Amino acid sequence: MLKFCKIAMLITTKYFEIDKLKLECGETLSPITLAFETYGELNSQKNNAILLFHALTGDAHAAGKHNSSDTKTGWYDKFIGPNKALDTNKYFIICSNILGGCAGSTGPSSINKLTNKPYGLNFPFITIKDMIKGQYKLVESFGIEKLHACIGGSLGAMQALEWMITYPESSNSCIIMASAPYQSPQNIALHEVGRRAIMNDINWNKGNYYDSIEKPNNGLSIARMIAHISYLSDQSMHLKFGRKIQGKEELNFELHNEFEVESYLNYQGKAFIKRFDANSYLYITRAVDYFDYSGDKLQKALNKNSCKYLIISFSSDWLYPEYQSIQIVNALQSLNLSVFYNRIESVYGHDAFLLEDEKLTPVLQGFLEHI
Amino acid sequence: MLKFCKIAMLITTKYFEIDKLKLECGETLSPITLAFETYGELNSQKNNAILLFHALTGDAHAAGKHNSSDTKTGWYDKFIGPNKALDTNKYFIICSNILGGCAGSTGPSSINKLTNKPYGLNFPFITIKDMIKGQYKLVESFGIEKLHACIGGSLGAMQALEWMITYPESSNSCIIMASAPYQSPQNIALHEVGRRAIMNDINWNKGNYYDSIEKPNNGLSIARMIAHISYLSDQSMHLKFGRKIQGKEELNFELHNEFEVESYLNYQGKAFIKRFDANSYLYITRAVDYFDYSGDKLQKALNKNSCKYLIISFSSDWLYPEYQSIQIVNALQSLNLSVFYNRIESVYGHDAFLLEDEKLTPVLQGFLEHI
Repeated sequence: MLKFCKIAMLITTKYFEIDKLKLECGETLSPITLAFETYGELNSQKNNAILLFHALTGDAHAAGKHNSSDTKTGWYDKFIGPNKALDTNKYFIICSNILGGCAGSTGPSSINKLTNKPYGLNFPFITIKDMIKGQYKLVESFGIEKLHACIGGSLGAMQALEWMITYPESSNSCIIMASAPYQSPQNIALHEVGRRAIMNDINWNKGNYYDSIEKPNNGLSIARMIAHISYLSDQSMHLKFGRKIQGKEELNFELHNEFEVESYLNYQGKAFIKRFDANSYLYITRAVDYFDYSGDKLQKALNKNSCKYLIISFSSDWLYPEYQSIQIVNALQSLNLSVFYNRIESVYGHDAFLLEDEKLTPVLQGFLEHI
Repeated sequence: MLKFCKIAMLITTKYFEIDKLKLECGETLSPITLAFETYGELNSQKNNAILLFHALTGDAHAAGKHNSSDTKTGWYDKFIGPNKALDTNKYFIICSNILGGCAGSTGPSSINKLTNKPYGLNFPFITIKDMIKGQYKLVESFGIEKLHACIGGSLGAMQALEWMITYPESSNSCIIMASAPYQSPQNIALHEVGRRAIMNDINWNKGNYYDSIEKPNNGLSIARMIAHISYLSDQSMHLKFGRKIQGKEELNFELHNEFEVESYLNYQGKAFIKRFDANSYLYITRAVDYFDYSGDKLQKALNKNSCKYLIISFSSDWLYPEYQSIQIVNALQSLNLSVFYNRIESVYGHDAFLLEDEKLTPVLQGFLEHI
């Protein structure tokens, strides 16, 4: 049985077409493609669907492998499969690449049908509400009237919250992990630095680099390094790297890659540029910056409904600190909505929602079974 | 009297020459200039001197004005002057620009006498021990055998600690604010991102930009923005900016400067490039990265002496979190040295040691008077 579980599901990415979407910025985007994957089977009552939203740089490939020769599985594979938290024996899980992304869904690197060239900076500004409006049409296309659950971490959780605000009767439950009701000024600032790093890359060329051999890879890599620091925690970096020197015993007196933590971050930056588009990074970070249910806005935006909420925060997450999860809990409780709050002790910082499978799995399973 | 206090001291920067210095990296630097300023008068017994060390991007100009028309006073003016924490009626305060700096002391932008060109990347690697060795010669030149106190915040405090380790009998007291016994991996990582931003600037040109009209200003500005975020706190950014939009009521859908926090950071970045050299930033951040009295190294390095220590941490400082100050306290206590620890509640994050004059002044005054 254990051996069986370790055989990854073979999954094919599919594509959903939307004729057009009126965006919050006022513009209309047409046409739109959403890349998506599904895991498990939709039952005949069509009431076992879970919509999983990905975070900033995720994609539709949440679980399994595309080919048996793939060395990696999808980004949430620890949580999706038979007997896992999102149990494919019970549930039908849908995950789509967000609007503005670069992994099959329409984004700045997609061809603008009006010019036959990539959009680049002609891509319209998008918001999290725009993202979930596209995904609503995808869910509708399966004939699903009400989800069993919607779930996400970080930006994924912001999408889940926006989903419940926009379509309050469309899910039985909503799981919010490592997230916030609004983007804090500190996080806007971190995003801004990342964007500046991209736009200061000589190869960015005001977003017109798709025809060039040279891409703004160094800038995008720096943006990723900044973000990556914010995904870890002071404690996890002590445990993982400490002050270890890369491959030697004594200092070499170099400006770069002297310490293991530097080599690791540079590796992460270089790995990122292979799979991500710099303009997508600009647009998606901006969409997160615009997310704003601060103050009493969340309470006012949420509708009374029978949805059950589960809010999960992680002790060492300094990107979306626990007090922001508690602000969501308070807004839900003030409306007398059903809300469970779970605070998980973790050293992994913001990334804990991706890594703490042993702690998260029983919490998610219990919640999903007793809705 | 109050009016009198508000008249800034008029101060002239002076320069101290050192023939040569053998550096920790193995190289010898020759000659060396240290820019310095003094405030107050050295008494006849020469026992009222306080050596003040500046932080990462500070300079020798700690107090007063150079000209009465100057709009700004020195970086620690709130704390230096008659009846202030470092009381010029009682003490003779010395502050010098660190080795590697760009405000009068020898650094990468200085002329290499061997080539008659700026050092650039031919400048040797420096450490915090190298910095204080130069300053020791400066203090000696006044005929001072023992300081009343050495004091600093952040990198300034690392210099103070290194001073006590290297010259254990040379100060009656030592004040360490907002600092740490070693640079954490998180902070090495933040520095590395800043360095990458500079070195990815097309105008950096491997450090050879001194003859060019175009300087690596954008890269240096980005490095400053990253650092500036780490000097503030989540809470202070909420209080100072929140999610306020720059100069308007509604979103404009722009990639930059939409939020006040972005405009502020960009302003800080642009102000910084007027006063700082990009190569100096590379070398000084690296010197801080190398600072390492982690584990039991501090206890082993400190010598038993009669110096009285005051360690001050600030509650919202996440760059040098309180546990790192406590590690210093523990090392001192384990050697049965005299140590006072003061934890100051502040929302200002790491910058609190520059801003919390009302809370800090009585603590510093009391300590300095009762040594």
